[in-house]
Amino acid sequence: MSELESVVELTRGAVVESRHRVHVAVVDADGTLRACSGDPELTTFWRSSAKPIQALAVVDDGAFERFGLTLRELALVCGSHSGTAAHVRVAEGILDKIGLTAEALACGPHPPFDSAARRGLEEQGLEPVRLHNNCSGKHAGMMAVARARGWEPDGYHRVEHPVQARLLTEVARWTQRPAEAIGLGVDGCGVVSYAMPLRHMALAYASLAAAARRGEHGPATVVEAMAAHPEMVAGEGRICTDLARVTEGRVFAKMGAEGVYCVGVPGAELGIALKVEDGNMRAIAPAVAGVLRELDLISEDDFGALHRHVFREVSNTRGEPTGEVRPCICLQAAGPDGAAHPGADGGTA
Amino acid sequence: MSELESVVELTRGAVVESRHRVHVAVVDADGTLRACSGDPELTTFWRSSAKPIQALAVVDDGAFERFGLTLRELALVCGSHSGTAAHVRVAEGILDKIGLTAEALACGPHPPFDSAARRGLEEQGLEPVRLHNNCSGKHAGMMAVARARGWEPDGYHRVEHPVQARLLTEVARWTQRPAEAIGLGVDGCGVVSYAMPLRHMALAYASLAAAARRGEHGPATVVEAMAAHPEMVAGEGRICTDLARVTEGRVFAKMGAEGVYCVGVPGAELGIALKVEDGNMRAIAPAVAGVLRELDLISEDDFGALHRHVFREVSNTRGEPTGEVRPCICLQAAGPDGAAHPGADGGTA
Repeated sequence: MSELESVVELTRGAVVESRHRVHVAVVDADGTLRACSGDPELTTFWRSSAKPIQALAVVDDGAFERFGLTLRELALVCGSHSGTAAHVRVAEGILDKIGLTAEALACGPHPPFDSAARRGLEEQGLEPVRLHNNCSGKHAGMMAVARARGWEPDGYHRVEHPVQARLLTEVARWTQRPAEAIGLGVDGCGVVSYAMPLRHMALAYASLAAAARRGEHGPATVVEAMAAHPEMVAGEGRICTDLARVTEGRVFAKMGAEGVYCVGVPGAELGIALKVEDGNMRAIAPAVAGVLRELDLISEDDFGALHRHVFREVSNTRGEPTGEVRPCICLQAAGPDGAAHPGADGGTA
Repeated sequence: MSELESVVELTRGAVVESRHRVHVAVVDADGTLRACSGDPELTTFWRSSAKPIQALAVVDDGAFERFGLTLRELALVCGSHSGTAAHVRVAEGILDKIGLTAEALACGPHPPFDSAARRGLEEQGLEPVRLHNNCSGKHAGMMAVARARGWEPDGYHRVEHPVQARLLTEVARWTQRPAEAIGLGVDGCGVVSYAMPLRHMALAYASLAAAARRGEHGPATVVEAMAAHPEMVAGEGRICTDLARVTEGRVFAKMGAEGVYCVGVPGAELGIALKVEDGNMRAIAPAVAGVLRELDLISEDDFGALHRHVFREVSNTRGEPTGEVRPCICLQAAGPDGAAHPGADGGTA
């Protein structure tokens, strides 16, 4: 455990009403812990932050070339999209190229994250379908891997299917966590989700960042896709998309449900994993931006450009402002031995 | 700070994915801390858990008798209702008796908490109105106090209005917290909200419980109203309503937004205040039921009857179970000096 704690606070008037504790691991490509806050060894689920690692198999197993997938489509495989018509079309495009339809998707439907898209469905009296599931790109990618490997796609979401065994190997490789030490659970979209300490998630992003920087084909293609099409990784107004845009692709970043977030920084060959202890998504963007600013991985200008994500005004049913959500980040530098040493001056906001 | 911590956990498979820390103060009518967990001195907003105390003014200032209000109507004044047609009718009834209409309500509209009521509005193409605001009963009660005292109701929600000064006095009296030490903020419905340590909130409920037990008119009437009409305090399927029903009125209990909850126990002359540190409402019911069971204030049978609130199954977009929300409550007994002493054996679930 670090001696320093990071929180995201909700204020009401001059009082802090609620607090979200944030655990952070900052790791380099050698696996050395470079900075932390709270408990960098905290075990939790990687959720959708695992998608860029899972997407590597789409390139490395040949599906990307064989089916003529585009970087835009690969970005959607890495993404948790907002369910707009554009996202749905790209997901359908992948399925079409691999000779399947939306019927093959195992993910359940949920209303689009994008409010205009959601209202659009409601106004037309339409129910959301599986393509609207924020993970439909990932699911299409999994079936693309199955197709490329000659495996029957049916049941691709189940832990016993060869595509899931293949992806677990990929996850174990990049996290340097033995497969048998990775906890398994069922994700919101029905596929396998991976539990491990934050430090291992951060290592995977650091290693992916370093491999992309070296120009290794799979890593470089995935990172390029996320940088070139940030609107496919999430959607308008969302932190993953805006972070890629503001930094012009100097970082790649992916949210996961229940307050998980991972960032890779190719230039610095660093990976960051954080978890909002309680899983509340409202704390994610302030926490991520605060951590990146504390580490000087984004500039003061970048931080300013993300202002509406970082300091989020909260208003009531009358439309009056009542307070804000804001980060209070204190990172502890870790030595070359990877042990945490007090000393970093902290305190975003 | 207590040495023991209480949490509500979200599991996925065999792994705990997210944790909600819970702070608890259990106080008797003398103001002595009898048990605690986390930080019983934690300052946060009382939010809607202040409503039963605010409702005392409706009885004590004569509005209840003068306007011929019913116990059912008084229960709605104490409540955060679900916005069903029945709730809306009762709120309209109060306004009608005091010679006002829904136009006078200062609270903003929000969709009903009750899903059938919400769908009903949507299907009729209707927007929610101010009467649907869960606080509309409280607002009507505030205007009833203004009417009884001969104050112009207009602007009753603002801190400078005499009705808000009157209610702050009531809050200060029951919490034994000087008015100038009570933090003020704007609530979700636009009226004044009060910030103070949990211990003071618990004291107010203990004192109200004891006063009701002694048969004092205002307290006894408010507690009787909540016991007689639990469906007006919240609504079907909600913990405040089900707790009153399961205990047959042996406890009165009121939720507040951002994870606050207060319980009064007339038979034991105890008050309990708890706060889910991060404000997440999903942790409230497991925490409250866990604390009450730990204190033996509800029986094993009562606890069992509340099972679906206490151990809440979580499922994914495919409808598959993925885990559960469950309490893990450890209370520390406090001595007659009110200081926390380790020693209570804890551990719900």
